[in-house]
Amino acid sequence: MSDNIAAYGEVMMRLEVPGYHLLSQSDTLSYTFSGTGVNICGSLSKLGHKGMLITTLPENTMGDTALAYLRKLGIDTQYVNRNGNYIGMYFLENGFGVRPPRVTYSNRLESSFNTTQYESDYVEHIAKNINFIHFCGISLAMNDTVRNQMKHLALLVKERGGTVFFDCNYRPSLWGENGHSKAEPHYEDMLRLADIVIMNEKDAIHTLGFETTAHNEREKLTSLIPLVAKEYNISIIAGTRRSVHTENKHSIQGYMYKEKIFHFSNQKTFNVLDRIGTGDAFASGIIHGECNAYSSEDTINFATSAAVLAHTTKGDTPMSTERDIISLMSHKNHDVIR
Amino acid sequence: MSDNIAAYGEVMMRLEVPGYHLLSQSDTLSYTFSGTGVNICGSLSKLGHKGMLITTLPENTMGDTALAYLRKLGIDTQYVNRNGNYIGMYFLENGFGVRPPRVTYSNRLESSFNTTQYESDYVEHIAKNINFIHFCGISLAMNDTVRNQMKHLALLVKERGGTVFFDCNYRPSLWGENGHSKAEPHYEDMLRLADIVIMNEKDAIHTLGFETTAHNEREKLTSLIPLVAKEYNISIIAGTRRSVHTENKHSIQGYMYKEKIFHFSNQKTFNVLDRIGTGDAFASGIIHGECNAYSSEDTINFATSAAVLAHTTKGDTPMSTERDIISLMSHKNHDVIR
Amino acid sequence: MSDNIAAYGEVMMRLEVPGYHLLSQSDTLSYTFSGTGVNICGSLSKLGHKGMLITTLPENTMGDTALAYLRKLGIDTQYVNRNGNYIGMYFLENGFGVRPPRVTYSNRLESSFNTTQYESDYVEHIAKNINFIHFCGISLAMNDTVRNQMKHLALLVKERGGTVFFDCNYRPSLWGENGHSKAEPHYEDMLRLADIVIMNEKDAIHTLGFETTAHNEREKLTSLIPLVAKEYNISIIAGTRRSVHTENKHSIQGYMYKEKIFHFSNQKTFNVLDRIGTGDAFASGIIHGECNAYSSEDTINFATSAAVLAHTTKGDTPMSTERDIISLMSHKNHDVIR
Amino acid sequence: MSDNIAAYGEVMMRLEVPGYHLLSQSDTLSYTFSGTGVNICGSLSKLGHKGMLITTLPENTMGDTALAYLRKLGIDTQYVNRNGNYIGMYFLENGFGVRPPRVTYSNRLESSFNTTQYESDYVEHIAKNINFIHFCGISLAMNDTVRNQMKHLALLVKERGGTVFFDCNYRPSLWGENGHSKAEPHYEDMLRLADIVIMNEKDAIHTLGFETTAHNEREKLTSLIPLVAKEYNISIIAGTRRSVHTENKHSIQGYMYKEKIFHFSNQKTFNVLDRIGTGDAFASGIIHGECNAYSSEDTINFATSAAVLAHTTKGDTPMSTERDIISLMSHKNHDVIR
Amino acid sequence: MSDNIAAYGEVMMRLEVPGYHLLSQSDTLSYTFSGTGVNICGSLSKLGHKGMLITTLPENTMGDTALAYLRKLGIDTQYVNRNGNYIGMYFLENGFGVRPPRVTYSNRLESSFNTTQYESDYVEHIAKNINFIHFCGISLAMNDTVRNQMKHLALLVKERGGTVFFDCNYRPSLWGENGHSKAEPHYEDMLRLADIVIMNEKDAIHTLGFETTAHNEREKLTSLIPLVAKEYNISIIAGTRRSVHTENKHSIQGYMYKEKIFHFSNQKTFNVLDRIGTGDAFASGIIHGECNAYSSEDTINFATSAAVLAHTTKGDTPMSTERDIISLMSHKNHDVIR
Amino acid sequence: MSDNIAAYGEVMMRLEVPGYHLLSQSDTLSYTFSGTGVNICGSLSKLGHKGMLITTLPENTMGDTALAYLRKLGIDTQYVNRNGNYIGMYFLENGFGVRPPRVTYSNRLESSFNTTQYESDYVEHIAKNINFIHFCGISLAMNDTVRNQMKHLALLVKERGGTVFFDCNYRPSLWGENGHSKAEPHYEDMLRLADIVIMNEKDAIHTLGFETTAHNEREKLTSLIPLVAKEYNISIIAGTRRSVHTENKHSIQGYMYKEKIFHFSNQKTFNVLDRIGTGDAFASGIIHGECNAYSSEDTINFATSAAVLAHTTKGDTPMSTERDIISLMSHKNHDVIR
Repeated sequence: MSDNIAAYGEVMMRLEVPGYHLLSQSDTLSYTFSGTGVNICGSLSKLGHKGMLITTLPENTMGDTALAYLRKLGIDTQYVNRNGNYIGMYFLENGFGVRPPRVTYSNRLESSFNTTQYESDYVEHIAKNINFIHFCGISLAMNDTVRNQMKHLALLVKERGGTVFFDCNYRPSLWGENGHSKAEPHYEDMLRLADIVIMNEKDAIHTLGFETTAHNEREKLTSLIPLVAKEYNISIIAGTRRSVHTENKHSIQGYMYKEKIFHFSNQKTFNVLDRIGTGDAFASGIIHGECNAYSSEDTINFATSAAVLAHTTKGDTPMSTERDIISLMSHKNHDVIR
Repeated sequence: MSDNIAAYGEVMMRLEVPGYHLLSQSDTLSYTFSGTGVNICGSLSKLGHKGMLITTLPENTMGDTALAYLRKLGIDTQYVNRNGNYIGMYFLENGFGVRPPRVTYSNRLESSFNTTQYESDYVEHIAKNINFIHFCGISLAMNDTVRNQMKHLALLVKERGGTVFFDCNYRPSLWGENGHSKAEPHYEDMLRLADIVIMNEKDAIHTLGFETTAHNEREKLTSLIPLVAKEYNISIIAGTRRSVHTENKHSIQGYMYKEKIFHFSNQKTFNVLDRIGTGDAFASGIIHGECNAYSSEDTINFATSAAVLAHTTKGDTPMSTERDIISLMSHKNHDVIR
Repeated sequence: MSDNIAAYGEVMMRLEVPGYHLLSQSDTLSYTFSGTGVNICGSLSKLGHKGMLITTLPENTMGDTALAYLRKLGIDTQYVNRNGNYIGMYFLENGFGVRPPRVTYSNRLESSFNTTQYESDYVEHIAKNINFIHFCGISLAMNDTVRNQMKHLALLVKERGGTVFFDCNYRPSLWGENGHSKAEPHYEDMLRLADIVIMNEKDAIHTLGFETTAHNEREKLTSLIPLVAKEYNISIIAGTRRSVHTENKHSIQGYMYKEKIFHFSNQKTFNVLDRIGTGDAFASGIIHGECNAYSSEDTINFATSAAVLAHTTKGDTPMSTERDIISLMSHKNHDVIR
Repeated sequence: MSDNIAAYGEVMMRLEVPGYHLLSQSDTLSYTFSGTGVNICGSLSKLGHKGMLITTLPENTMGDTALAYLRKLGIDTQYVNRNGNYIGMYFLENGFGVRPPRVTYSNRLESSFNTTQYESDYVEHIAKNINFIHFCGISLAMNDTVRNQMKHLALLVKERGGTVFFDCNYRPSLWGENGHSKAEPHYEDMLRLADIVIMNEKDAIHTLGFETTAHNEREKLTSLIPLVAKEYNISIIAGTRRSVHTENKHSIQGYMYKEKIFHFSNQKTFNVLDRIGTGDAFASGIIHGECNAYSSEDTINFATSAAVLAHTTKGDTPMSTERDIISLMSHKNHDVIR
Repeated sequence: MSDNIAAYGEVMMRLEVPGYHLLSQSDTLSYTFSGTGVNICGSLSKLGHKGMLITTLPENTMGDTALAYLRKLGIDTQYVNRNGNYIGMYFLENGFGVRPPRVTYSNRLESSFNTTQYESDYVEHIAKNINFIHFCGISLAMNDTVRNQMKHLALLVKERGGTVFFDCNYRPSLWGENGHSKAEPHYEDMLRLADIVIMNEKDAIHTLGFETTAHNEREKLTSLIPLVAKEYNISIIAGTRRSVHTENKHSIQGYMYKEKIFHFSNQKTFNVLDRIGTGDAFASGIIHGECNAYSSEDTINFATSAAVLAHTTKGDTPMSTERDIISLMSHKNHDVIR
Repeated sequence: MSDNIAAYGEVMMRLEVPGYHLLSQSDTLSYTFSGTGVNICGSLSKLGHKGMLITTLPENTMGDTALAYLRKLGIDTQYVNRNGNYIGMYFLENGFGVRPPRVTYSNRLESSFNTTQYESDYVEHIAKNINFIHFCGISLAMNDTVRNQMKHLALLVKERGGTVFFDCNYRPSLWGENGHSKAEPHYEDMLRLADIVIMNEKDAIHTLGFETTAHNEREKLTSLIPLVAKEYNISIIAGTRRSVHTENKHSIQGYMYKEKIFHFSNQKTFNVLDRIGTGDAFASGIIHGECNAYSSEDTINFATSAAVLAHTTKGDTPMSTERDIISLMSHKNHDVIR
């Protein structure tokens, strides 16, 4: 595999209430720009790859600012189009201890990303220039324009021998009532096109309708994931299991199923500074491992450590370098670096 | 007249880039909530009246925060409904000297205000409890739901002997191409219902189609406003003329046409801290003067001074008390108050 | 019981050094307004009740700002008078881990609240309109004007069949040397008027002079509280026991004694963001439970959970809704809400 | 004259609303410590003298912070005592253009400074070590403890051949009704002890009861000041006349009457960033000129330029060095210094 | 001319004291990255060109941050090398009115830029890919490594038919004592290589030793610039004359000498928000005009207006688009843009 | 021992990225001034001693600001010289949990401190006035000018019967390759002059070349420290052992070897707010204990508790008073102090 990697997805403006105040207790917000595609491309850029984002931004000061921010993250912006008038936004109120963080979305269905249909030529032009593409289940929840674009792009990349990566990322609030059955055909389409997939046993059961008699989560996972891999002809399936403790503490454990073998990382426990985007750190860790032909064991440990570090940096987009992650993997407890 | 005053209008979240940075140069925003109705009610509350806002806010943290902010301004919120999911937003980049301020709107057509149709009973209930209501041309530009609600409310208040106030406030960008002809029938409907109107000669010419052979703005005004007042049976027409100098300096002069006589304030020149919402300070000054049976001369001077002071306070919503405004009118140059 | 609830108490300006700096290390302060009465009314407003604050604010910009802040909290301000020149203030330096927070008061004895004697008619007018009133031992420590007003109000509400709530809240620094004996007669007066009381075994022993041979705190509590309830004819006595661990961690357990039965909540351990005002969250939880005729068990769990959540939000005044508290009581560990 | 200079006066905490917001529009304050004595000592320290402040601060974190701030300004703090519990405070809302700044005081009468009576030995000890002392009319307005201390100190310094400086600085709000007659005996006492006085014709007329038939301010000044100098045997009288324009612009002109001759500076017009404390910059300019045996013309120009520069720096305490002031006096318009 | 434009120059970290405080009055700094090359490339990027910066940044978090900032400005960073350990820094204290801004440099001689010698191959590689290159007299003041690199690059670009741009930008403090004679040979070398030069009559007289009997600045300019152009065979010479008024107000007038004809812009007067980098806005305006084959009159007006607008935006790097500049040139006074 | 204490060392400007952002994620920095000497003198000032700093600051706004900051900390600045142009700087990015903090230095070798050679007379003058002096291994790593000055000062103080304190503080990055052998002769010089030394077994082994067959750290320590004390004739050797847990938690245990006896404090575990400067808190605790003739047990417990508290306050310089530290030693868990 080479590292001419693209991700398709919406750019969201993240408006965060500073510190631990509620929106009604503050009068300032800090803003950044993120989204699954942004996080993947930004993270891969930090890891030394060329991360090309395929998206659309409005032709106004909001779009200019988002574009400048993407460039600052090191993202390759040659496939960022300018069209439409709006950018999706979300407001974040941080949680503290037993009080969970809260995310409130603005109306994103009229955003530039969700209302822009690319020319067929343009899609082919993109597909020609990339050999790895990342998609995510959040985009799949948007509308038919976006869904068709996803499938079209995935197909073109696959036809040219590229690798298709799909992160299931099922968000109940986006699909609404009977969401799983609405989502199923689209998830199936994407899974059939995908080479690498992020998912867990819940996706298999609820969205794809697989069944199992296993009693605990681990057994369900190990019984169902091989069936999914076989059914949709997927090379690699990976994911994490998270436990949320009180007192700002979480644990995660990563798994990767490849060539019919499961690999599990150690369970890691850590304090949480910023929860959002950590799944994308995991995904970009898997991509980095695969692009560098790491062993499966190294890949899953690298990806899980990348996710842990992403919990300790502000913002959605992972900021860690390969050296930062390997340093954490080496289990050295660090005092000040100077 | 009594001071049981209502205003109908959307609550907008104002997201301001601090200082004189562009959005692309900053990473924080300060936020407040405003809108013509908010400004009128907030200003009237400072002037000692009960200002009741008729609007709709979403049932989420955005709506909670907006509601708390309205209460902080002293606005009576008994007619603030909760429905829908979104709040209109605008981003403000302050100007400096020769560089003008810039406002960028989010998609407000799906806001709670613009998508909520009140029950007929509810509208009647409101109309019964108020005897003065303020409307503005910005709301008229939204959609038919809003437009019909405006006309319905205005009619009901008028039928019960209340006073209807209409600020023409024509915004070209909201009406789009051929905006004046789209707007004309709706403006005519509102003018026929209105007792007090804020407008100038440009509204008469471009929106209402009046014609004049006068050569300068003042002559156009004095020739056309009496025709408008007669045509639509309006008791009072008032407005301001603004000159924008370089170096953060503006001049304004107010006029009021009442009982067939024009009254002009002095031309006032001043430095500008925050331009937005100053027209609403003028309108609330007219309302305050009329509610207190000021002479026309006093009213137009009070309203113009209110507008001047509004340029020197941050935020859209005027914050001056009657004492502040009268102190400015008395032409005393003030050193520190202690 | 109905929910036309009032609280009598001083409004304090809280001036907080941002982050974990000492006052001598910073040059900015953030400010809010609080006080036991403010916290009770604000908290009850979030819980869906009408919380009416009985207090006095100065007639200047400090008073205007405090009043706007109370309105923002959703407090009913019809019994907020304007008189005098000063507002009480306190400076807060946050603690971190083993370093405790530190509070420094300005001179509050000349505050508007502490120097304003209400007209007799006015007190009767208030008493007529409310059927539940909250008092606190901090006010009792101020001066005779305040003490007499408290007892007068309590008596009038009780005479009309209303419920009197008294939170002992004994603050050694406010009563000075031999404080307990100075306080005793006033505490006894209030306890005789009270229906619901917040206290623990220390108040019984030190202020009221009860004696016990029990050896540990729990036994002292269970032996003495019934005697206090009987002696002063109190329907409900409740309170919390707190343990302070190092590392920003506290534990609390609530108890409620009602109809001769003790109910204890679970012991809850949690990280602390903002310690101040959490006792008022507990008190408002008891009030909410009683107003909604919760079972004693539900009330004590609700009140204790309300206190826990109040430790995780900034500011003195509890900001949690009934839904937030019940969600915590259900023991679900929450990841991001979106 | 030598430069072992002391000033007697209260330290005030200045709590400023950032930018141009009102207190009710903000939630943060920036704080510094000032007062006439602080400003004089701080300014003289910048000008290369030893400025010793005679004051009292509370024994708590407020006092610690104030003391650290005084040291930061370069003030010699050997005569700063620690006693009492409170520090005086004032809140500043900045003005903009036609909207004047507003200062609101906390209750300063119970401050450490205003309630501390020095031991007689201690006063003598101070008087022995200094040969120049500055007093101000603001302290004179406080109470008898402070007034007696002022007169005692002034007398002791004068007896030892030191120089006594008195800035009339009459503040109407501090003296209350019939303030001038209450103030008169105390002002006369101080003027009889003073060698150098800051005042203008209004002090002569209103406080001291001098009369003149002159028609304009300049003539009143030139007719009355010589009479005052003679009556109270004052060596030097100086002062400024200020005009406040709109648009943040002021003009000032300084005068100095010494050895029966008037010296006037040029009238200087400038934009105002921070008005407060500029009179103290003028006074410290006079002191600096006298200590360095400048010609009267140089002294009045230096003092007036010092006052102008003080309008362009934040905070009450002047921050300009001799080089900064002389550079301004040389009339060079400066571009960036690099 | 094409727009494959490069600039050679150091990246400086600008550390600005917020607002109008002195460094000793604050405890926070805001930081950006700039330098003449950065400003030219950033400004050209806003004007629609590809601006490639030739520079060196350290291999640490300072360099990473600078690089991200350059990308955010839209600068092409393919010729930004990573080497060495330090980045040049300067501290900026803003002026106000009669108080000038002050810039204090850190030790920049050990910076990555000033200590890195490029490989000969690399320089040739760069020269091959560009056809327009910008240099500045500030770099010329650094050391021989930098000076030789400048001349080498200029020569290679010239040899390949590219355009060499040189901004004299003589900084006395960088050349030290007898600076003009130290600088002369290097300025002469650069002028002989240059096609377009920014300079004025002072450079001609003091650095290059030209003489004139003209009495005023304008006559000196018009008599000397043609001689310089002839002597060094320069196609275009341009520059501005600045007057600094009090009250944050400056005036500038631009001139351009091309094909033996002088073109002058109007004199423009404006308020100043941020003085630094405005000369680079002028230079990039000249480049833009030449690249777009504007008439000389249009070019000089465009460049001068670009410089004016740069005074009204924060930061060293010009942020205006072609539309912003043309809008200012059209002399329309703008109210809010919405 | 008396408490006329001096410390010799560089003043560094600490530029901290606020919160937990990386430098590339922020645009503001907060700044303070520190360095081992600053921390020792500041800490001793808080503990009631006179702490005199021997250092050199540049003659510009950076130096003025640093000097004001030192005064604010209560440091006696009579031995702070002004010379040279630069101040050393370091940038701090805070860590969070498993992500360690990162410190990046500017070029400090050209700083005023590192380039200033004191006159011989001046060094003698200082040595005459002090009887206790603190040095640190960081200064020893700078250059020969600094090293010679250290040894000269130490010798002069020792000759006059004063006490010499040396904190080994070996920083690998400052000594470079083969650092230990480069450092050895200089460390030996200082140890021979020192009365009190901070070190641990690693210094003995790696820098001084001692050998031991002990297997664990504690045994190595107890076997080697007596040998070091004997070899270099040192009265007291002390130090701490640190364990770094995940989740912002550290443990430390202090030891002191005096009169051939080892004393160990309890192991203390605590959350970390600001790691830097905590070793200096320990050293100043040892000095305070010795100056007050505490028992060895009290001294080591006091010093260790001082170090613990220093982890809970922002900034390098310890801010705790004797009362704060003794309160922590008394093992009382504190709730709010009010």
